Formats: sequence, C-alpha cells, structure tokens
Amino acid sequence: MKIVIAPDSFKESLTALEVAEAIETGLKKVLPDAEYVKVPMADGGEGTVQSLADATGGQLVETEVTAPLGNRVTAAFAVSGDGKTAVIEMAAASGLHLVPPEQRNPLITTSYGTGELVKAALDKGVEKIILGIGGSATNDGGAGMLQALGAKLTGSGGLDIGYGGGSLAKLDKVDLSALDGRLKNVSFEVACDVDNPLCGKNGASAVFGPQKGASPEAVAELDAALEHFAATVSRDTGLNIRDHAGAGAAGGMGGGLLLLPEAELKAGVEIIIEAAKLADKVHDADLVITGEGRMDAQSVHGKTPVGVAKTAKRFGKPVIALVGCLREDYEVVYQAGIDAVFPIIRHTASLEEILKQGRENLISAAQNVGRLYRLGK
Amino acid sequence: MKIVIAPDSFKESLTALEVAEAIETGLKKVLPDAEYVKVPMADGGEGTVQSLADATGGQLVETEVTAPLGNRVTAAFAVSGDGKTAVIEMAAASGLHLVPPEQRNPLITTSYGTGELVKAALDKGVEKIILGIGGSATNDGGAGMLQALGAKLTGSGGLDIGYGGGSLAKLDKVDLSALDGRLKNVSFEVACDVDNPLCGKNGASAVFGPQKGASPEAVAELDAALEHFAATVSRDTGLNIRDHAGAGAAGGMGGGLLLLPEAELKAGVEIIIEAAKLADKVHDADLVITGEGRMDAQSVHGKTPVGVAKTAKRFGKPVIALVGCLREDYEVVYQAGIDAVFPIIRHTASLEEILKQGRENLISAAQNVGRLYRLGK
Repeated sequence: MKIVIAPDSFKESLTALEVAEAIETGLKKVLPDAEYVKVPMADGGEGTVQSLADATGGQLVETEVTAPLGNRVTAAFAVSGDGKTAVIEMAAASGLHLVPPEQRNPLITTSYGTGELVKAALDKGVEKIILGIGGSATNDGGAGMLQALGAKLTGSGGLDIGYGGGSLAKLDKVDLSALDGRLKNVSFEVACDVDNPLCGKNGASAVFGPQKGASPEAVAELDAALEHFAATVSRDTGLNIRDHAGAGAAGGMGGGLLLLPEAELKAGVEIIIEAAKLADKVHDADLVITGEGRMDAQSVHGKTPVGVAKTAKRFGKPVIALVGCLREDYEVVYQAGIDAVFPIIRHTASLEEILKQGRENLISAAQNVGRLYRLGK
Repeated sequence: MKIVIAPDSFKESLTALEVAEAIETGLKKVLPDAEYVKVPMADGGEGTVQSLADATGGQLVETEVTAPLGNRVTAAFAVSGDGKTAVIEMAAASGLHLVPPEQRNPLITTSYGTGELVKAALDKGVEKIILGIGGSATNDGGAGMLQALGAKLTGSGGLDIGYGGGSLAKLDKVDLSALDGRLKNVSFEVACDVDNPLCGKNGASAVFGPQKGASPEAVAELDAALEHFAATVSRDTGLNIRDHAGAGAAGGMGGGLLLLPEAELKAGVEIIIEAAKLADKVHDADLVITGEGRMDAQSVHGKTPVGVAKTAKRFGKPVIALVGCLREDYEVVYQAGIDAVFPIIRHTASLEEILKQGRENLISAAQNVGRLYRLGK
C-alpha cells in the first residue's frame, strides 16, 4: 500500500513538512507496512520556499538585498535538490513585515530587493524560477524589481526615476534593452492567486494600497502613477499590462513581471504541484492525505488541499483531508475531489493551546483515519 | 447495510436520543439506503431513565415522594414500551440536587423517597426494576428505602428510628417480615459502578460523605452508624452487607438493597445493554456507531461506548466512536473493542458555544465517517 501525504502548513502551528511527518506518525501506528511519500505543499504564499525545499530535498540560500525602504536585509530563497529550480518569495525581500507600521508608505517602498533575489537565483544557474508574490509592502508596479534586473526607467533629462510607487509619475521612458540576458533562458513562473487588473477600482492601489499604509489621497496618486506606467510601457514596448488579469497583484508586481521575457502568472498551488512532481507521486498511490490549517468554502479557490485533490482525482485516488479548523460552509470541497474531512481538535482550549497541540492532534486524527480506512480493507 | 447507532448522552449538550438522531442525519447524507437502528444508551447514571424510555418506546411516570429532608417532591421513572420494565434513578427522589447546599447533612437525609418510587413501579405491575443509584444526598445505608418498602427498623422500646444516617446509631432490631411481598416476584437490578464496601476508609461515609456535606466529625459518626447497622443486620437476618463490593455505593444504598429478596448489584452499562436488547440489534449489523461526551482512559471502566463495543465484538462488528472531547490517554479504548474514535469539535470556541454546536458537529463528523467508511466498500 502506498500513501501520499501532501498537506499545506498549519499557519502559526506547523510547517507543511511537520504536518506531513505528524500524519505519517499517526498512520504508521495502524499501517506500519505501507509506503509513505511525504510531499510538503504550499499555495505560493507564506511557507512556499520552505515547503519546496523540503519537498525536493533542496536548500535555502541567503543573500543581502534592498529592503522596501532602501535599507539592507538578509533574505533567503530555495534551490531544489536537483539544482534546477529556485523558489523565491517576494515577501522575503519586499514584505510588509519588513516595514514598521508607522513607516509604511507605498509611495516610497520599492520591490528592488525582489529583483536582486531573482538575480541571485540566476547566479545559481537555475533553469526555472518560481516567484510567490504575496505579502508585499510595495505598490510600484514591480518597477524596482525591473530596475534591479537592468531595466532603465527614466524621467525628464534621462535621470533614473528612483524608488517607490510615487516615482512612477515622473516616468518618461521604459528601456528593457539592458535587462539581464539570462532571463531569456529560464522558465519563470509567478504564483499569483488574485486576478485584479493593474489600475482602477479593482486595481492594485485601490484594493491593496490601504493595507500597505496608503491614505485615500495616496491611493489616488498611486493609481494615477500606475496608469502612467502602463501607458508608458505600452508606448515603449507595445505590451499591454494595464488590463491583464493578475497585473494588480502585489502592488502591480504582477504587471511589472509581464515585461520579463519568460514570466507567466499562474495559480500558486498549480505551480507547486508541478514543481513537487505531485502527479508522478500520486498516480500509483492507494490513498492521498492532505490538510490545511483552516478549511472553508474559500478552500476551493486555489488552496492546497483542493489542488492536491484535483491532481489525485486525475488518477481516481481517494483523498482525505485533516484540518485544524473546519468552518460550517466547507462541504463544497467534496465536489472538488476531497472524499472526507476530519478536524483534529480533541478538546476545548484557547487558540494558543490548540496551536501548540497541533502535532499531537494530527497524530491522533491520522491514527483514527487509518483505523477506519483499514476497516474497509 | 445495517448500521446500529448506540451512543450515550453528551452531558449538557444532547440526550442520547438526540445524539443518535444527529449521527443518523450525518450518515444518511452518505449512505441513504442503509437501515438505521437507534439505541439511545446510558451507564446507569444521569440520563438513564430518559434513554431507556427512548430506547424502548416507553413512557415517563410521575409521582410524589419524600425528598431527602422529608419534604415532598415530584419524581419520574420510566416504564418500558412493553410495560415489563421500570427504570428508576435514585437521584430523582433522593438526589443531592434536591437539597440546598447550606442544608446538606447526611446525618438527617433519607433515601425514603427512592423506596416510594420502587413501590410506585411495583404498582405498575412491572416484572423487572432497574435502579440507578448515582448522585444521592444520603448516607443512610438505604434504611429509608427499606422503611418505605415495609421493613421495620426500631430502636429501644420498639420505636421506629426515624430518618437519616445518624439515626442508625439508635438501631436495635431489623425486621424484614413486612417487606412488600411483590419484591419476591420481580427481577431487581441495581446499576452500581463503584465497588466500595459499606464501612471503613474506603466505605460510603469516608469516600462519599464529604461531597454530601458531612464534616470530618460527621463522617466518623456516620461510619460508626453504618458499622452498627451492618452488625444488627447480620445478627437479625444472617446477611453480611458490610464487606460486599458495592455496598458502599450511594451512601450505603448498595448495602441496603442487598436486603431485598431479588436485588442484584451490576455494572450500569451492562444492565442498560441488556434492557435495550443491544445484542439482538447488533448481531446482524454491518457497523456500530457509539459515542459519549468525553472519552479518556476511564472510559474503559463501565462507560457506555466500551460496553457497546464489547457487545458488538461478541459478533465481530466494527465499532466507531464519535466524542465531544478526547483526552490524551484515550487510546486504551482500542483494546476494549473500539476501532476508531473521532472528536467532533470543528473549531475553537468557548465551552458554552461548543456545547451548543453539538448537533451540527455530530452531523458533520458522522457524514465524514460515512464518507471514509464508504471508500473501503
């Protein structure tokens, strides 16, 4: 019997690898002779780098880059075990958590450090880059990232426009001729789970600007700046990034990335499933176990368990989910390929205690799932 | 497919019948064509009367009896659907909840009302009486109960000794010749889940007296009175109740009941399992579902799910338990015949909220158990 264990992390409690290990421990009490394959998953958001390193036997690489306010910060990315794939989280270099709340101002924060991480990955000789773009502090349309990779963004007199979403208002010319040439030789997948356009009421500035510290006035200024950026890009490169679904992700980073030769915006969980070679692992499995910290109706929209279930169902495999928390409206996941769901909490306690009990609760739940599953065999 | 659902109540949340109904609702979403047999269970403690009435299609009978302090109280007992069996809870007539905390005094509280309930059951023409003896306010060795049923307990000058554990010190003579003659023609099963002797450091007074309001001095006085009671009984009837296992239950009620011609002390859950004809119902079942509010290592000692599992395992049937709360040390229940256990809490909340969510959580858990069970079929 072969059992594939492919869970997401349980946020604030366990990494995806720790979740997979706990589930394996519980199942092994009941099914000691089964073959277990652990595939720590992620959805492109927080934890993706760690999960991919864990899933492929890879390693983390640390490098110093430019933080959103221009200071220096040490950020890590993962290189897969075979050395061919790098996984980068934008938040590591350009994340909101790197900016103290009172200094948050997307008019001046830059995505430059994320571009530096991409360069560092290219320096490692990878063939593929996966970039997760959640949690950013920026609203610069990815301009900083482009600058770090060699793009010239200049204003009047040919001067560099500098950092920040506000600086885009000064943009006079976009010149991509000096972009890092290695970008043409890599596959570049961007994990992007929103489909917002770059500008307007559903755009980056209006939807995500306020949570990054933008006042209503700043939102208007940023939106106008991105409009100008898109118009200049269109004029100078012929690319329309303004209305592209996902261009508004991460303060317009989705749009800026479209200027790179091979970059492609995709659903995060699909990228991870491909990178982790999940299909190869489940096609001959007898049972697939997945899980996430919280399952609800939103779980059918790009979350890990449903992505895992879809892959498993291509091969007709049964899928069980173990979850930290199960909201009343979760039952739509059945239609998405999850056969049964078990919450793991064993008794009432504070959230803090429950988070600490994650491992023991998972072991117990997995053991009982194994026991019930075995009854039918 | 036949599924037997035989849970205990979830205290403070749902009766055993409500638990069974919720489980059936959840399973029916997955296995709509199965035959469902609901057998609300109990362990002889609180909820037993209601469960037996529910399990047998019986009815509740109300009657006015003597409360522990001598005032009158309306108490109910159950008569089974076939009219042959009465189920009585001692607590209904002689319970601690009937005495305000500041008036609790086992020197004076009497079990007389419980004897009156037994008489009322005999008046209904039943062939069998089941008496659960938990939760009592008394420490009178069942003397009050015996008095109500016709026994003469007299002191110097042939005067009735009156009520209360303290009065037993005045006992001069025990005369059972006027006991209600109908007691010889009924089967009388006493649900008794402790094996304490009547007297001494493990006896009724020392172990249970304090929680009924006895001071250390009163405990000593009560223990001496029960010693005198046992000695007088032995001299006048030849019966040794002092060292009988269970004689110390319910303030010595277990011992007093031994003076009735057909009374027998048994584990509560076994009595209920027999009365509910559980074996007849599970012998051709495909799956047995049980449950209780809290499962832990103590659950193997006379609690409902393990009793149900033992009965099911006589016929080799799989047993799944759904529980409100699962403590770390529960795994010993596996050895007792429970194949798998699933806690039903779906997310953190206050205990009050969790108790209110019992029905919905049970439906959800049962549904997922059904879905996983079906995978194996």
